[in-house]
Amino acid sequence: METTVQSGDLRETRSLIASDKVEGTPVRRSDGEKIGTIERVMIEKRSGKVAYAVMSFGGFMGLGEEYYTLPWSVLKYNVELDAYELNLTEDQLRGAPRRTAEGHDASYDREWEEHVHRYYNATPYWGESDPMSTGR
Amino acid sequence: METTVQSGDLRETRSLIASDKVEGTPVRRSDGEKIGTIERVMIEKRSGKVAYAVMSFGGFMGLGEEYYTLPWSVLKYNVELDAYELNLTEDQLRGAPRRTAEGHDASYDREWEEHVHRYYNATPYWGESDPMSTGR
Repeated sequence: METTVQSGDLRETRSLIASDKVEGTPVRRSDGEKIGTIERVMIEKRSGKVAYAVMSFGGFMGLGEEYYTLPWSVLKYNVELDAYELNLTEDQLRGAPRRTAEGHDASYDREWEEHVHRYYNATPYWGESDPMSTGR
Repeated sequence: METTVQSGDLRETRSLIASDKVEGTPVRRSDGEKIGTIERVMIEKRSGKVAYAVMSFGGFMGLGEEYYTLPWSVLKYNVELDAYELNLTEDQLRGAPRRTAEGHDASYDREWEEHVHRYYNATPYWGESDPMSTGR
Protein backbone atom coordinates (compact mmCIF):
# COMPACT_ATOMS: atom_id res chain seq x y z
CA MET A 1 0.00 0.00 0.00
CA GLU A 2 1.12 3.49 -0.82
CA THR A 3 1.52 6.13 1.81
CA THR A 4 -1.42 8.52 1.87
CA VAL A 5 -0.62 11.33 -0.51
CA GLN A 6 -0.99 15.08 -0.17
CA SER A 7 -1.58 16.03 -3.79
CA GLY A 8 1.17 17.80 -5.70
CA ASP A 9 3.79 18.17 -3.05
CA LEU A 10 4.08 14.50 -2.21
CA ARG A 11 7.14 14.02 -0.01
CA GLU A 12 7.28 10.29 0.48
CA THR A 13 6.06 7.04 -1.01
CA ARG A 14 6.87 3.47 -0.13
CA SER A 15 10.06 3.59 -2.18
CA LEU A 16 10.88 7.31 -2.62
CA ILE A 17 11.64 10.15 -0.23
CA ALA A 18 12.00 13.87 -0.94
CA SER A 19 15.23 15.70 -0.25
CA ASP A 20 13.38 18.39 1.70
CA LYS A 21 11.87 15.73 3.91
CA VAL A 22 15.30 14.29 4.72
CA GLU A 23 16.62 17.77 5.50
CA GLY A 24 15.77 18.71 9.07
CA THR A 25 15.25 15.13 10.22
CA PRO A 26 16.95 14.45 13.55
CA VAL A 27 19.53 11.74 14.13
CA ARG A 28 19.13 9.87 17.41
CA ARG A 29 20.63 7.00 19.30
CA SER A 30 18.39 4.01 19.98
CA ASP A 31 17.59 5.42 23.43
CA GLY A 32 16.20 8.57 21.80
CA GLU A 33 19.11 10.87 22.60
CA LYS A 34 19.63 13.38 19.84
CA ILE A 35 23.00 13.47 18.09
CA GLY A 36 22.27 16.04 15.40
CA THR A 37 20.11 17.09 12.47
CA ILE A 38 20.41 16.29 8.77
CA GLU A 39 21.14 19.51 6.91
CA ARG A 40 21.36 18.23 3.36
CA VAL A 41 22.39 15.32 1.22
CA MET A 42 25.28 15.38 -1.23
CA ILE A 43 24.50 13.95 -4.66
CA GLU A 44 27.11 12.59 -7.05
CA LYS A 45 26.28 14.57 -10.19
CA ARG A 46 27.45 11.98 -12.72
CA SER A 47 25.60 8.97 -11.35
CA GLY A 48 22.78 10.69 -9.48
CA LYS A 49 23.59 8.68 -6.38
CA VAL A 50 23.28 10.16 -2.92
CA ALA A 51 26.75 9.92 -1.48
CA TYR A 52 26.39 11.56 1.93
CA ALA A 53 24.05 13.05 4.43
CA VAL A 54 25.53 16.05 6.22
CA MET A 55 24.60 16.20 9.90
CA SER A 56 24.96 19.38 11.91
CA PHE A 57 25.68 19.33 15.60
CA GLY A 58 26.01 21.96 18.30
CA GLY A 59 26.72 25.61 17.76
CA PHE A 60 24.30 28.50 17.78
CA MET A 61 22.92 30.37 14.79
CA GLY A 62 25.53 28.74 12.60
CA LEU A 63 28.45 29.73 14.84
CA GLY A 64 30.59 26.91 16.14
CA GLU A 65 28.43 24.35 14.44
CA GLU A 66 30.09 21.16 13.36
CA TYR A 67 29.22 19.18 10.26
CA TYR A 68 29.55 15.43 10.15
CA THR A 69 29.56 13.69 6.82
CA LEU A 70 27.70 10.39 7.01
CA PRO A 71 27.61 7.84 4.20
CA TRP A 72 23.98 7.66 3.06
CA SER A 73 23.94 3.91 3.66
CA VAL A 74 24.44 4.25 7.43
CA LEU A 75 21.18 6.17 7.91
CA LYS A 76 18.34 3.91 8.96
CA TYR A 77 15.01 5.55 9.56
CA ASN A 78 13.30 4.42 12.77
CA VAL A 79 9.56 5.07 12.82
CA GLU A 80 9.29 4.96 16.60
CA LEU A 81 12.11 7.44 17.10
CA ASP A 82 10.79 9.50 14.16
CA ALA A 83 14.46 9.99 13.37
CA TYR A 84 17.41 8.36 11.71
CA GLU A 85 18.90 5.92 14.18
CA LEU A 86 22.65 5.99 14.58
CA ASN A 87 24.41 4.49 17.53
CA LEU A 88 27.61 6.45 17.84
CA THR A 89 29.07 6.75 21.32
CA GLU A 90 30.39 10.12 22.52
CA ASP A 91 33.90 8.82 21.85
CA GLN A 92 33.01 7.69 18.35
CA LEU A 93 31.38 11.03 17.68
CA ARG A 94 34.47 12.88 18.86
CA GLY A 95 36.59 10.91 16.42
CA ALA A 96 34.16 11.06 13.54
CA PRO A 97 35.11 12.78 10.28
CA ARG A 98 33.76 16.30 10.38
CA ARG A 99 34.14 19.78 9.08
CA THR A 100 34.09 22.52 11.63
CA ALA A 101 32.48 25.71 10.40
CA GLU A 102 35.92 27.30 10.48
CA GLY A 103 37.73 24.23 9.24
CA HIS A 104 40.04 23.96 6.30
CA ASP A 105 39.32 20.36 5.47
CA ALA A 106 36.29 20.94 3.35
CA SER A 107 37.32 19.28 0.12
CA TYR A 108 35.73 15.97 -0.66
CA ASP A 109 38.80 14.34 -2.15
CA ARG A 110 38.85 10.60 -2.64
CA GLU A 111 41.30 9.99 0.21
CA TRP A 112 38.99 11.79 2.63
CA GLU A 113 35.98 9.95 1.24
CA GLU A 114 37.71 6.62 1.83
CA HIS A 115 38.45 7.67 5.40
CA VAL A 116 34.76 8.52 5.97
CA HIS A 117 33.57 5.19 4.60
CA ARG A 118 36.12 3.21 6.59
CA TYR A 119 35.11 5.04 9.76
CA TYR A 120 31.49 3.91 9.39
CA ASN A 121 32.39 0.58 7.81
CA ALA A 122 30.22 1.58 4.85
CA THR A 123 30.44 0.36 1.28
CA PRO A 124 31.76 3.16 -0.95
CA TYR A 125 29.07 4.62 -3.18
CA TRP A 126 31.54 4.83 -6.06
CA GLY A 127 32.34 1.12 -5.99
CA GLU A 128 29.86 -0.06 -8.61
CA SER A 129 30.85 2.37 -11.28
CA ASP A 130 34.62 2.11 -10.97
CA PRO A 131 34.99 -0.67 -13.59
CA MET A 132 33.27 1.64 -16.07
CA SER A 133 35.34 4.63 -15.10
CA THR A 134 36.98 6.48 -17.93
CA GLY A 135 39.49 8.01 -15.58
CA ARG A 136 38.03 11.48 -15.84
CA MET B 1 40.72 21.68 -9.53
CA GLU B 2 38.17 21.78 -6.75
CA THR B 3 35.60 24.50 -6.55
CA THR B 4 36.49 27.10 -3.93
CA VAL B 5 35.02 25.92 -0.67
CA GLN B 6 33.13 27.75 2.02
CA SER B 7 34.15 25.76 5.08
CA GLY B 8 31.62 23.49 6.75
CA ASP B 9 28.56 24.16 4.69
CA LEU B 10 30.14 23.23 1.38
CA ARG B 11 27.39 22.96 -1.22
CA GLU B 12 29.25 21.84 -4.30
CA THR B 13 32.46 20.22 -5.43
CA ARG B 14 33.56 19.08 -8.83
CA SER B 15 31.65 15.81 -8.48
CA LEU B 16 29.09 16.42 -5.73
CA ILE B 17 26.19 18.83 -5.30
CA ALA B 18 24.04 19.48 -2.22
CA SER B 19 20.29 18.86 -2.28
CA ASP B 20 19.63 22.33 -0.91
CA LYS B 21 21.62 23.83 -3.75
CA VAL B 22 19.55 21.96 -6.35
CA GLU B 23 16.34 23.10 -4.64
CA GLY B 24 15.41 26.56 -5.84
CA THR B 25 17.46 26.35 -9.02
CA PRO B 26 15.53 27.61 -12.05
CA VAL B 27 14.90 25.57 -15.18
CA ARG B 28 15.27 27.52 -18.41
CA ARG B 29 15.14 27.00 -22.14
CA SER B 30 18.35 27.63 -24.07
CA ASP B 31 17.12 31.15 -24.87
CA GLY B 32 16.91 31.92 -21.16
CA GLU B 33 13.15 31.73 -20.80
CA LYS B 34 12.18 30.33 -17.45
CA ILE B 35 10.05 27.20 -17.34
CA GLY B 36 9.99 26.59 -13.59
CA THR B 37 11.94 26.02 -10.40
CA ILE B 38 13.27 22.82 -8.85
CA GLU B 39 11.46 22.25 -5.56
CA ARG B 40 13.07 19.01 -4.42
CA VAL B 41 14.57 15.77 -5.59
CA MET B 42 13.03 12.36 -4.96
CA ILE B 43 15.47 9.74 -3.72
CA GLU B 44 14.94 6.00 -4.04
CA LYS B 45 15.42 4.89 -0.44
CA ARG B 46 16.74 1.42 -1.17
CA SER B 47 19.44 2.32 -3.67
CA GLY B 48 20.08 5.94 -2.67
CA LYS B 49 19.65 7.01 -6.28
CA VAL B 50 18.01 10.28 -7.18
CA ALA B 51 15.03 9.30 -9.28
CA TYR B 52 13.37 12.64 -10.03
CA ALA B 53 13.59 16.36 -9.71
CA VAL B 54 10.23 17.98 -9.02
CA MET B 55 9.77 21.28 -10.86
CA SER B 56 7.08 23.75 -9.82
CA PHE B 57 5.47 26.05 -12.33
CA GLY B 58 2.93 28.85 -12.12
CA GLY B 59 0.50 29.42 -9.32
CA PHE B 60 0.75 31.87 -6.47
CA MET B 61 1.64 31.15 -2.85
CA GLY B 62 1.23 27.45 -3.52
CA LEU B 63 -2.26 27.83 -5.01
CA GLY B 64 -2.75 26.53 -8.52
CA GLU B 65 0.89 25.53 -8.73
CA GLU B 66 1.71 22.60 -10.94
CA TYR B 67 4.42 20.07 -10.28
CA TYR B 68 6.31 18.39 -13.07
CA THR B 69 8.27 15.28 -12.34
CA LEU B 70 11.49 15.23 -14.34
CA PRO B 71 13.83 12.24 -14.50
CA TRP B 72 17.07 13.38 -12.85
CA SER B 73 19.02 12.43 -15.96
CA VAL B 74 17.31 15.07 -18.14
CA LEU B 75 18.62 17.96 -16.04
CA LYS B 76 21.76 19.48 -17.48
CA TYR B 77 23.22 22.42 -15.63
CA ASN B 78 24.20 25.30 -17.88
CA VAL B 79 26.71 27.68 -16.31
CA GLU B 80 25.84 30.59 -18.59
CA LEU B 81 22.12 30.31 -17.93
CA ASP B 82 22.88 29.65 -14.23
CA ALA B 83 20.01 27.18 -14.48
CA TYR B 84 19.14 23.70 -15.58
CA GLU B 85 18.62 23.77 -19.31
CA LEU B 86 15.57 21.98 -20.65
CA ASN B 87 14.16 22.62 -24.07
CA LEU B 88 10.50 21.80 -23.77
CA THR B 89 8.15 23.68 -26.06
CA GLU B 90 4.89 25.07 -24.71
CA ASP B 91 3.12 22.12 -26.31
CA GLN B 92 5.49 19.61 -24.77
CA LEU B 93 5.08 21.27 -21.40
CA ARG B 94 1.29 21.11 -21.68
CA GLY B 95 1.49 17.39 -22.31
CA ALA B 96 4.17 16.68 -19.71
CA PRO B 97 3.44 14.40 -16.75
CA ARG B 98 2.47 16.55 -13.84
CA ARG B 99 0.61 16.72 -10.62
CA THR B 100 -1.66 19.67 -10.10
CA ALA B 101 -1.83 20.80 -6.51
CA GLU B 102 -5.41 19.56 -6.43
CA GLY B 103 -4.72 16.47 -8.51
CA HIS B 104 -5.41 12.89 -7.63
CA ASP B 105 -2.61 11.37 -9.63
CA ALA B 106 0.04 11.70 -6.99
CA SER B 107 1.13 8.12 -6.55
CA TYR B 108 4.46 7.15 -8.03
CA ASP B 109 3.44 3.73 -9.24
CA ARG B 110 5.66 1.95 -11.74
CA GLU B 111 3.24 2.43 -14.63
CA TRP B 112 3.28 6.19 -14.08
CA GLU B 113 7.07 6.15 -13.68
CA GLU B 114 7.43 4.38 -17.00
CA HIS B 115 5.20 6.99 -18.61
CA VAL B 116 7.39 9.80 -17.22
CA HIS B 117 10.57 8.20 -18.51
CA ARG B 118 9.12 7.51 -21.94
CA TYR B 119 7.93 11.10 -22.18
CA TYR B 120 11.45 12.43 -21.71
CA ASN B 121 13.10 9.53 -23.49
CA ALA B 122 15.11 8.94 -20.31
CA THR B 123 16.71 5.71 -19.13
CA PRO B 124 14.78 4.38 -16.12
CA TYR B 125 16.73 4.80 -12.88
CA TRP B 126 15.61 1.35 -11.76
CA GLY B 127 17.02 -0.39 -14.82
CA GLU B 128 20.39 -1.37 -13.41
CA SER B 129 19.09 -3.10 -10.34
CA ASP B 130 16.25 -5.06 -11.92
CA PRO B 131 18.29 -8.22 -12.51
CA MET B 132 19.04 -8.28 -8.78
CA SER B 133 15.46 -7.57 -7.80
CA THR B 134 13.97 -9.92 -5.25
CA GLY B 135 10.49 -9.05 -6.38
CA ARG B 136 9.68 -7.09 -3.25
